[in-house]
Amino acid sequence: MKKLINAPDAVVREALEGMELAYPDRLRVSYDPAYIVRADAPVAGKVGIISGGGSGHEPMHGGFVGPGMLDGACPGEVFTSPTPDQMMAATKAVDGGSGVVHIVKNYTGDVMNFEMAADLAGEEGIPVEVVVTNDDVAVQDSLYTAGRRGVGITVIAEKICGAAAEERRSVVDVAELGRRVNAEGRSMGMALTACTTPSSGEPSFVLGDDEMEIGIGIHGEPGRYREPLAPASVVVDRLASAVVEDLPYSSGDQVLAMVNGMGGTPLIELFIVYRELHAFLEERGITITRPLVGNYITSLEMAGCSITLLRLDDELTRLWDAPVNTPALRWGA
Amino acid sequence: MKKLINAPDAVVREALEGMELAYPDRLRVSYDPAYIVRADAPVAGKVGIISGGGSGHEPMHGGFVGPGMLDGACPGEVFTSPTPDQMMAATKAVDGGSGVVHIVKNYTGDVMNFEMAADLAGEEGIPVEVVVTNDDVAVQDSLYTAGRRGVGITVIAEKICGAAAEERRSVVDVAELGRRVNAEGRSMGMALTACTTPSSGEPSFVLGDDEMEIGIGIHGEPGRYREPLAPASVVVDRLASAVVEDLPYSSGDQVLAMVNGMGGTPLIELFIVYRELHAFLEERGITITRPLVGNYITSLEMAGCSITLLRLDDELTRLWDAPVNTPALRWGA
Repeated sequence: MKKLINAPDAVVREALEGMELAYPDRLRVSYDPAYIVRADAPVAGKVGIISGGGSGHEPMHGGFVGPGMLDGACPGEVFTSPTPDQMMAATKAVDGGSGVVHIVKNYTGDVMNFEMAADLAGEEGIPVEVVVTNDDVAVQDSLYTAGRRGVGITVIAEKICGAAAEERRSVVDVAELGRRVNAEGRSMGMALTACTTPSSGEPSFVLGDDEMEIGIGIHGEPGRYREPLAPASVVVDRLASAVVEDLPYSSGDQVLAMVNGMGGTPLIELFIVYRELHAFLEERGITITRPLVGNYITSLEMAGCSITLLRLDDELTRLWDAPVNTPALRWGA
Repeated sequence: MKKLINAPDAVVREALEGMELAYPDRLRVSYDPAYIVRADAPVAGKVGIISGGGSGHEPMHGGFVGPGMLDGACPGEVFTSPTPDQMMAATKAVDGGSGVVHIVKNYTGDVMNFEMAADLAGEEGIPVEVVVTNDDVAVQDSLYTAGRRGVGITVIAEKICGAAAEERRSVVDVAELGRRVNAEGRSMGMALTACTTPSSGEPSFVLGDDEMEIGIGIHGEPGRYREPLAPASVVVDRLASAVVEDLPYSSGDQVLAMVNGMGGTPLIELFIVYRELHAFLEERGITITRPLVGNYITSLEMAGCSITLLRLDDELTRLWDAPVNTPALRWGA
C-alpha cells in the first residue's frame, strides 16, 4: 500500500485537521464527534443542510460545506458510515431555527444512522427532513445497499438544496426539491482499477490488465459485469445508454451532465469522456446546458469515471447557477 | 495501459474538443495549430498572457485560461513541447495592442520554441516579454532541462501576472512581477508511482512496492534519490527542508503554500500532507497566509505530491486575492 499517510487509523482525523488548517476562515471542525460546519453556522432563519458518509469520496462531503451548499458534513472512517452522534451534533450545530435537511446517500448504514439522528433531533425539537439519493442505475441491490445506491446526484442535490435554503425556503420545500433532483437524476460508473483502503492495505478487488468493470459502486462494490478494456466511446455508450434508458431522458430534454473521475483518472481523460457523452446525447436530441467535469465523488485512487444526468427545468437551472462558495465548488462568490 | 481514451494519438485533440464543449462560453479552441484562448480574446488595451507546455499536467495550462489569469494556452502532445507556430498563433490571438507575456516552464524544448515564437512576434510588431520559471530545487540539471525545472510556481505566476494584467499594467511590469514571483518561489516533488504516457504504453520508470522517489520531475524524470516508503511527516520533512533551505525562507516570512497532487493521489492524502507542512513551517516561524491544496500541475495518473512556497508581500497577496474566473481556479467572479 503506497499512500501519503502517517498511520492507517489516523487518516480521517489528520485529513480533517489539514482541512481545518487550510480553510480557517471558511470551516469549523469538531473532532469528537467529527463534523465540519461552515464558519458562520448556524445561520439564523435559514434551513440547515447536512450530509455525510464514509470518507474516501473527497471532495464529498466536506469540500461542499459553505454558503450556497452544505452547512455541515459528517465524515465517517474510510468507506464507513458516520455515527448517529456525529449526525446529531452536526444537526444541532447548523440549526438556525428553521429545521434541518439531511441528504443521505442510499447505503444501509448511512440510512439507518441518519434515521436515528433525525429521531433524536426531533425529540429535541429540531424538525428534520430526509432526502435519500438513489440515482445509480447499475444494480438494484448491492453489497451495502437495499435498493439503488446513492452516487453522483448527491453532489447536485447538495448544490441545489443549498441554493434554495439561501433563499430562505422552508425545510419541507428544500427537501421536496432534493427529492425532485433525485427523481430527475440518474448515474452509472465504471472502474479501470480497484482502490485500497488504508485499514485493509489490499485492493478491494482484482481486475485483469485487460478488463474493466461496468456499473461499479463507489466503494468498489461489484457492478453489472466485467468486459475487456474498450475505447472511451464504448465505455460512454455502456454508461450513458443505461442512464438515458432508465429515466428515460428523451429528445428535447435539457440536462446537467456531470463527468466525474473516481480519483485516479487524469482530467485529460475525463474531457475525452465528456466529448463522447456530448456526442452520445446530441445524437438522441438531448442537450447539455450545464456541464461539470472533474473529481466530485471519488473512490480513493480508483481509476474510472461515472456519468450523472439531471433533467433541468428553469427553476433547477437557476438554483444550480446561484452563487456557491465552498472549497470544491465555487462560483459567483 | 488502462486509460479512458479512444486512441493514443488522438488523446490531446479529443481532450481539447471535450474542453471546448464543456466551456463554450468561456474558451475558444483552435486545432491547427492547437491553442486555447479566453472567449473574449483579445482584450483591447490589456497585456495578453500565454503559457504552454506538454499536455498531461492538467489542469495546467488550459484550465487556467480566463479572466484574471491566462489569455491563452498552447498544449503540446503529452509530455512534449508545443511548437513555435502554436505559440505564435496564440500570441497573435491574445494581443490586445499592449504586448504579450510568455510564461515558460524551464524545459529545453519549451524555452527554445517560445524563444522562436517571441522572435517571430517581434518581427510582426508584437512586443513579447518572457518569464521563465525554474522553481524546482530538486536537481540542478535534468533529463529535459539545463538548470532547474519550472514546476508549481508557474501556476502562481500565471495567477498573479493575470491579476496585474487586468489592472492594465504594462507588459514590462507584468513580466517583472512574474520574475519576482519566480525569484520568491521554490518547489519540490515526490512520487509513489510512475505514470504511463498514452504513446509509450509503459510506465516511465519502475519503483519498488516499498520505494518512493524524492525530487521527481513532472515527466517522471529522476529525482534526487530513492528511499524506502515513509510516513507523510517524513515525506514533508524531505520536501519542505529542501525548499525552505534553498531560498531560504526565514522566521517571520509569510507564504503562500501549495500542496499539489501529481494526479493519482486522493485529496484526503493531500490534506494530510498540508497538515504536516503547516506544522513544519510553524516550527520555523513561517506563516502560511494563503493555502492551495489540490491537483494543479499533475503528471498524468502519477501518485505523489509537490510542495511550492511563495514568499508573500502585500502586493503579491492582493494580486493573488484578485478575482479569477477559469475552469480550474475561480473566486470572486
